[in-house]
Amino acid sequence: MTDRTGPALATALAYHEAWTGGDLDRAMTYIADDIVCDAPAGRIEGAAAYRDFIGPFTGILVRAEMIAAFGDEETALVMYDTETIPVRNAPGAECVTVKDGRIIRSRFLFDRAPFQTAAEAAAEIS
Amino acid sequence: MTDRTGPALATALAYHEAWTGGDLDRAMTYIADDIVCDAPAGRIEGAAAYRDFIGPFTGILVRAEMIAAFGDEETALVMYDTETIPVRNAPGAECVTVKDGRIIRSRFLFDRAPFQTAAEAAAEIS
Repeated sequence: MTDRTGPALATALAYHEAWTGGDLDRAMTYIADDIVCDAPAGRIEGAAAYRDFIGPFTGILVRAEMIAAFGDEETALVMYDTETIPVRNAPGAECVTVKDGRIIRSRFLFDRAPFQTAAEAAAEIS
Repeated sequence: MTDRTGPALATALAYHEAWTGGDLDRAMTYIADDIVCDAPAGRIEGAAAYRDFIGPFTGILVRAEMIAAFGDEETALVMYDTETIPVRNAPGAECVTVKDGRIIRSRFLFDRAPFQTAAEAAAEIS
C-alpha cells in the first residue's frame, strides 16, 4: 500500500476502514449530509441515499485490501481489492473531496458486470 | 485535477496523454514488454496483449478528462472521465507500478456494464 499523509486522505482511510470493517454507522460519520456521489449506476445525493448505496456492499464483503491511497489537503484517491460473497475479485476506486472531515463529493468506481452476472445466475437458480 | 510530481506519475501521465490523444505507438513506449495488468475481464500479460486491450479504447474515445492523479517514486494512481462512442460517461482508474520509465504492473478499472449494454443493443439492431 502506498499512502501519503494529509487531512483528506486521513478521512478517506478512516471511512474506508469503517465500512470495510462492517461498521456502517461509523463510516457514515465521515459522510457529509449533502454528499454528491457519482457511482456506476448514476448520481447519489445525500447521506441517506449514500447509506442505501454502500450498505449492501458492507453486507456482502468478505475482505478488503488497499492497493494504493494518496491524498492532499482536499482530495484523496484510493484503489482497493475486495472479495465479496457473489464476486470473488471486485476492486474499487474512490476519489473523494473532503471538507471539515467529511466527504462532500465522491466518484465511486467498480465493475458492475460480475455482480450482474452473479445476480442473473442466482435468479436462474431460484 | 490534483497531481503530485514524481517519476512514476510522470510516466503515468505521459502514457495517459498519449493514449487519450490517440497515439497508441507513443503510449506503448511507456509500457514494459513484460507488463502484467489486471483488467476487469482478467489478467493481461505482455505488451502485445496490452496493446490489443487498450487499442480498441483509443478507437472509440471521444474525449478524456483527468479527475485526480497522484504518485510517488514507484506507484501512480489516476482516475479520469472518458466519453466514448458507445458509452457517454465511462470513468476509469489505473494504478501503475513504474520501473525505468515503463509501466510494469497495472490495475485497470472501469465499469463494463454500459459497454455490454451498448454491445447488446448494437447486436439487436444489426
